[in-house]
Order: sequence, then structure tokens, then C-alpha cells
Amino acid sequence: MAVKAYLFDSYGTLFDVYSVSRQCEEKYPEKGEQLSKDWRELQLQYAFLSQILQQYEPFDEITKKALMAALDRQKILYEEADAEELSKAYEKLEPFEETKKVLSALQDSTVMTFSNGTHGMLQPLIKHHGLESLLGIISADEIRQYKPSPAAYQYALDKLGLNKKEIVFVSSNQWDITGAASFGFQTVWINRKEEPTSHLGFVPDLVLTSLERLPEEKPPQ
Amino acid sequence: MAVKAYLFDSYGTLFDVYSVSRQCEEKYPEKGEQLSKDWRELQLQYAFLSQILQQYEPFDEITKKALMAALDRQKILYEEADAEELSKAYEKLEPFEETKKVLSALQDSTVMTFSNGTHGMLQPLIKHHGLESLLGIISADEIRQYKPSPAAYQYALDKLGLNKKEIVFVSSNQWDITGAASFGFQTVWINRKEEPTSHLGFVPDLVLTSLERLPEEKPPQ
Repeated sequence: MAVKAYLFDSYGTLFDVYSVSRQCEEKYPEKGEQLSKDWRELQLQYAFLSQILQQYEPFDEITKKALMAALDRQKILYEEADAEELSKAYEKLEPFEETKKVLSALQDSTVMTFSNGTHGMLQPLIKHHGLESLLGIISADEIRQYKPSPAAYQYALDKLGLNKKEIVFVSSNQWDITGAASFGFQTVWINRKEEPTSHLGFVPDLVLTSLERLPEEKPPQ
Repeated sequence: MAVKAYLFDSYGTLFDVYSVSRQCEEKYPEKGEQLSKDWRELQLQYAFLSQILQQYEPFDEITKKALMAALDRQKILYEEADAEELSKAYEKLEPFEETKKVLSALQDSTVMTFSNGTHGMLQPLIKHHGLESLLGIISADEIRQYKPSPAAYQYALDKLGLNKKEIVFVSSNQWDITGAASFGFQTVWINRKEEPTSHLGFVPDLVLTSLERLPEEKPPQ
């Protein structure tokens, strides 16, 4: 079955979540790198917990609260307004160097990002990098779910109106690949850090170390 | 309302999950401490993912797979049988020094552990330390759920047949306190590592640094 759509995760896949270390470093010298790591770790932890607890909060709120938790962990004193301000760094995340070229090369297919981020977070980010003509947006926030819940992937599938096997789902996040593969998507894992494969048993159809070769290397049909 | 039952989390609360570093160190010298940390981190990650994916696996399976992932992360070569064998360390986790004394002091109330662990994991552990007369078992595995899903806490509540406010839920795991507080239990967080409080908004009624003072320090009614 021919590939009709590419569905990209945003955070970690098209855009580098650790690029916020620059803004963190400016505001909190010598803490930038650790803050950016803790921030991401806690952001995912909070999102997963909210999903399990069935206590949904939009991802911008989760992101701000995770930053506050990261600042607490570093014993940094702050006001909530500081965290609110620094969270705006998510609207200017750096894309990976190959992002724009690869999105451009795939334009014969539908190309969308499917993200836990809200439209309010994703639109300015995509616009900031001039990618709006290359990339549509599906946000799991539209149904108040987070990936990797099956309901989130089902929503993206319904939005695209295609057969599962006409879609290639691409993510750097192993939990996202596990979720998408468990749901039945064809998956490409962009394993940027050469992490070992999960033992949960839902494995990607294809593994690449960056997006670079995605246009040539289609997953086996 | 008088407290009629104490419900204790097991792993991290009554028993030290990091005590497996001893068995890890014996088998993989100089890797024990890091393995024990990664093992726990991945065990929780796998359990939460399985819960969100609605792909339940018993906690002994999750524990074994998480150990395999931890061994992968350290680039250690192993057979699945090695991981199976080392996983048995969970049947001999060390209790915290105050565990037995505190359980003994609470025997005027019902005292149970409520754990994600299976009966097959918890029974030998409790027996190994001679605690079987002091501690009953409710396992979330009985309904193929993991804490912190609301269904898991509801199940424990139904099993006890008490009013929510007659139960004190005790855990060292902040995600477990968040889940139990969100569900409506009275909660005591045993904050052994002096971690900052979560920003998700479900806060414990009482915070202690060990179980030691639990018999005296009841949460406010």
C-alpha cells in the first residue's frame, strides 16, 4: 500500500527540546543544561501521570509546571511568572538541521505533525521557522488526550481519513513509537541517541539515526 | 472520622527497591548501583506505558523486562534466564529499618499493603521477613490495573469496604500520592529523599521523612 501521509511527532523529532538550555542558561547561569534535561523528564512524567489519572491539563500548563518542578529540583527560587516567561522558549525550539529539507522532500504526500502540544504552542513554533507551508498540525489537545493513549492515535487516524497502512508515523521518542506501533501504525523510530530497543514488544518497522534518509528509506510494506 | 485501615505501598515505602544493588553488584561488579537505579526507573516507565497503552502485563514480567532494559543500557550481555534469576531479588528486598516496628504499632487498625506487585512477588517477600501476621495483601494485579489509575484505588477501597476517609494511604512514591490524593484518599507521603512537592496539584495531607512517626502523626481529619 502506497504511503499517503507522514505523521511527525514534534518535540524531539522535528524540534530539539534540549535547545531550551540556551534560554535556561541565560536566565540561570551554569544551570541551563541540567534544567533542560530535568524539564523534559518532568514534562513527560507529568503528562503520563495526568493521562493515567484522567486529569487532563493542556500541554502548555504541563510544560510550565514541569519547568517549576525542574527549578525546584535545582533549588532555584522563582516566581510563577518567571516560569511562564521561560516556557515561551518552547515557541522557539531549534529544528534539527535536516528538518526543513526532509519536510520539503516529502511534499508529494500529506505531511502533518501530530503532537501533544497545543495549537497555541505549535503554531508560533512552526511559523517562527517558516515551516507553515510544509507542515499541518494535529494536536491531541483537540480531544484532551495525550499520546501514547490509543485514543490519541485513533483521533489522528480519523482526522487523516486514511487506512492505517497508508500512514508512516515518525518519532524520536521511544514511548511514542511503542504507542503508535501498539496501535497499528507503521513506525519509523529516529533513534538520535542510539538507545537500546524497548522490551515492551512493540517494535518500530524502521530505525534511523536522523530524519535525513527518511525520504529514501520507506518502512517495509 | 476514625482511621480504620492503613494501606501501604510496598516498593519504596515498606521495602527498599534499591537494596537489589547488592545482588546486581554480585553478578555485575561495579555496575550494581547504577543498575538498581536504572532498573527502578525503567520498571516505572514500563508500568506507566503499559497502563496508558491498555496493554497490561503482570508486574513480575514488567520487572524482568525493565531489568533487561537496564542491562542493555549498561551494554551488559546477558541471557533472558539471567534477568529472570536476578529479578528474584525482588522477593528479598530489604525492609526499611522502621518497617516492622511501625506495622506492629498499627495493629489496632487493618493494615494492608496495596501494591502493583503480584501476589507471586509479594507473598515470598513478606514471608521472607516474617511480616505475614502484620500485613495483608491487595494487589492491583487482581484487576489487571496499575496504580496510579483511579480504577486501582477504587478496587482497594471496595476490597476494604470502608469509607474513603477511614483509610490512610501511605507511600514514598510521589506519583502514588498524586494518584491516591486525586482519587480522594487521605495520604501520607514518606518523602525519604526530601524531594520537592509535585506541581500537579494533588498534595499529601501529611509529609514525613520515614515511617517512624506514623503511629503518632495522623493526618488532619
